[in-house]
Amino acid sequence: MTYEWLPHGSVTDPKGFTAAAAAAGIKVSGAPDLALILCEKTATAAAVFTKNRVESDTVTVCRRHAADGSARAFIDNSGNANCCTPDGLAVAEGICAATAAALGLAPQDVLPASTGIIGESLPLAPIEKALPTLVANLSASGGIACAEAIMTTDTVPKHRALTYTGPDGATITLGAIAKGSGMIHPNMGTMHALITTDATITAPLLKKALCAAVDDSFNMISIDGDTSTNDTVAIMASGLAKAPAIALENEAYRAFAEALKTLCIALAKDIAADGEGASQLLICQVLDAASTADARQVAKSVISSSLVKTAIYGGDANWGRIICACGYAGVPIDPAKIDITVKSGAGFATVCEKGRATGISRREINYIFKQPPLTLEIKLGQGKAEAEAYGCDLTERYVAINAEYEV
Amino acid sequence: MTYEWLPHGSVTDPKGFTAAAAAAGIKVSGAPDLALILCEKTATAAAVFTKNRVESDTVTVCRRHAADGSARAFIDNSGNANCCTPDGLAVAEGICAATAAALGLAPQDVLPASTGIIGESLPLAPIEKALPTLVANLSASGGIACAEAIMTTDTVPKHRALTYTGPDGATITLGAIAKGSGMIHPNMGTMHALITTDATITAPLLKKALCAAVDDSFNMISIDGDTSTNDTVAIMASGLAKAPAIALENEAYRAFAEALKTLCIALAKDIAADGEGASQLLICQVLDAASTADARQVAKSVISSSLVKTAIYGGDANWGRIICACGYAGVPIDPAKIDITVKSGAGFATVCEKGRATGISRREINYIFKQPPLTLEIKLGQGKAEAEAYGCDLTERYVAINAEYEV
Repeated sequence: MTYEWLPHGSVTDPKGFTAAAAAAGIKVSGAPDLALILCEKTATAAAVFTKNRVESDTVTVCRRHAADGSARAFIDNSGNANCCTPDGLAVAEGICAATAAALGLAPQDVLPASTGIIGESLPLAPIEKALPTLVANLSASGGIACAEAIMTTDTVPKHRALTYTGPDGATITLGAIAKGSGMIHPNMGTMHALITTDATITAPLLKKALCAAVDDSFNMISIDGDTSTNDTVAIMASGLAKAPAIALENEAYRAFAEALKTLCIALAKDIAADGEGASQLLICQVLDAASTADARQVAKSVISSSLVKTAIYGGDANWGRIICACGYAGVPIDPAKIDITVKSGAGFATVCEKGRATGISRREINYIFKQPPLTLEIKLGQGKAEAEAYGCDLTERYVAINAEYEV
Repeated sequence: MTYEWLPHGSVTDPKGFTAAAAAAGIKVSGAPDLALILCEKTATAAAVFTKNRVESDTVTVCRRHAADGSARAFIDNSGNANCCTPDGLAVAEGICAATAAALGLAPQDVLPASTGIIGESLPLAPIEKALPTLVANLSASGGIACAEAIMTTDTVPKHRALTYTGPDGATITLGAIAKGSGMIHPNMGTMHALITTDATITAPLLKKALCAAVDDSFNMISIDGDTSTNDTVAIMASGLAKAPAIALENEAYRAFAEALKTLCIALAKDIAADGEGASQLLICQVLDAASTADARQVAKSVISSSLVKTAIYGGDANWGRIICACGYAGVPIDPAKIDITVKSGAGFATVCEKGRATGISRREINYIFKQPPLTLEIKLGQGKAEAEAYGCDLTERYVAINAEYEV
């Protein structure tokens, strides 16, 4: 399957979507903090959420509104998570009601998302006040402004779009915006990703394709091991590409699911590379595992290790930390079967064979470590399953950002 | 039960133990790196080890030697973990053989431990060369030098001893040395703790008391979430206090087990407070849990959260990160029942009641945050079980230490 990545792609590339962003005043900095994305007709919709047992009231309301498999709009605020506050549920419902009123929709057609500080009440008034202007500004070029409005500690906005030609010859577009970049860990790896497409697809298959894509992308990121209360990945499908409807798990479904996964993996890497304080993307490939679940667990364990992350940051060939993180992953690995190779643009070096040092010099390994991005390839020698996880190094900047976090 | 803490206490306070340390040349810095502790008669012994599936060959040999429930000596090197190297097993056996030869013992009477870098061969020659002098220097005042010799990134040596009077009127002494301070996480929370006592106790009861003490102390520490390949806690009991033998789970056993746990918890706090780069100890008390296992898991989740740890470092009242870490602990908590109180020398503040913000001002919370050490008290509202975990804040210094780690 070949994909064409669209320059400056985002949620407004698929047919049928407009978007707008505003600085509503939720962030004290005055930066943009509210994004609205509208589908011109009722879209098929699906969403997946954080598995944290403490969840934002915004997540609770979004889950409820997505349950019927259809939606018209995403509304996403940054600057406040709307979580663990006395009035959170009323605020989340108020956001949807105000958005629906401004657009002439029913509240359950609106899928909300929030990100920011936990435990401080999110004021509804600034959002209500900003909505008329937001609606007036909706345009087919508003996607990137939305990517900017949902940023918190992200340093770059994340937005992508791709097209592919399905087996029936129709061209389908998928677009997305996403945000990181702290409190990110498996079990819904990203804070937010809002995805749009002009494919025509049934709600159950859209949900199935979304879950599969998320498992191999956002759920394979770890920035800091903290699973957020607000993680949300949601998709709307407008059907306006006028491609034949995807209603069976046939070739057309597989092409769509593959394209969605490709989009999500690209965004997952974008998020990992822009992890709080990160200086580089880190990829961990686990091969020859007994099962996909095992491969994922080992890959996530390595990518989550503070000691691996600081070693990468230091350009330090302390690969013992990698095998150590394999050992405590909670998977029945056999150390005597493990091979580890570090790879980068500078080349590759097998540092460990059958669980023991190969004797390659630290200087040689350091040379590869210092040419990011780095891929850590771990062969478990137990089967044929594999997985890939995405993370970043751990720097002093991560600490500084999180020691002084303000909205 | 009352305990008397001995000033400058260590492994040489219980009757029957001598110790010595040396700079054998394993550390390139030339700092002390080898510790020897001898019991003048065959001691009852027990040990517990890392649960990491990748383990040091030194751990493998120590486990084998401790299996018969008796020992005469501890030999502990820093500067090299003797892990994942081609000749690690031969080196571990060589250390025990050389120690045994120098002391006139059988190799299986020697319990070895190693800590330091993984994947680089530990040279045996410097250890063999140092042993005669070590043996010649064994003395009843050598315990603290041993605590210094097993340090890696620790900034202070950890050593303690206490006495108590058993139900039969006999005075029993327990002493220990321990080291942290990175790659520390539940499932054998410390790198090394070597414990001595002059109690008389059977091997099965010594093992039972040790496991119980470790579960409530070293296994409740997390510095960075990385479970080491080399964690070792071992104890020798000389029987030289001439107290009646502990052979049943009676009052005398419970008094001993309680004293051992008290010693281990004190050392666990010492290790947590001296975590790599740490500026303060952090205690998390979980109360009203459905089970002890649940309480431990939630406490460890909170203490392990990078975001909680950086917030504490920043003196920032971002308590949402605390409840967030409760939510992803993997325990069936009910957020609507959770109360959170932060406590310090400056007072206390209940920041969250029944899962929602109490509205106490951030300034007021910050005042408490800035008077370390801080205790985070979390009531789950589900039962009567409780647990306490020990950690530290996460600072730029942790990153700097681990980005440039050298032996």
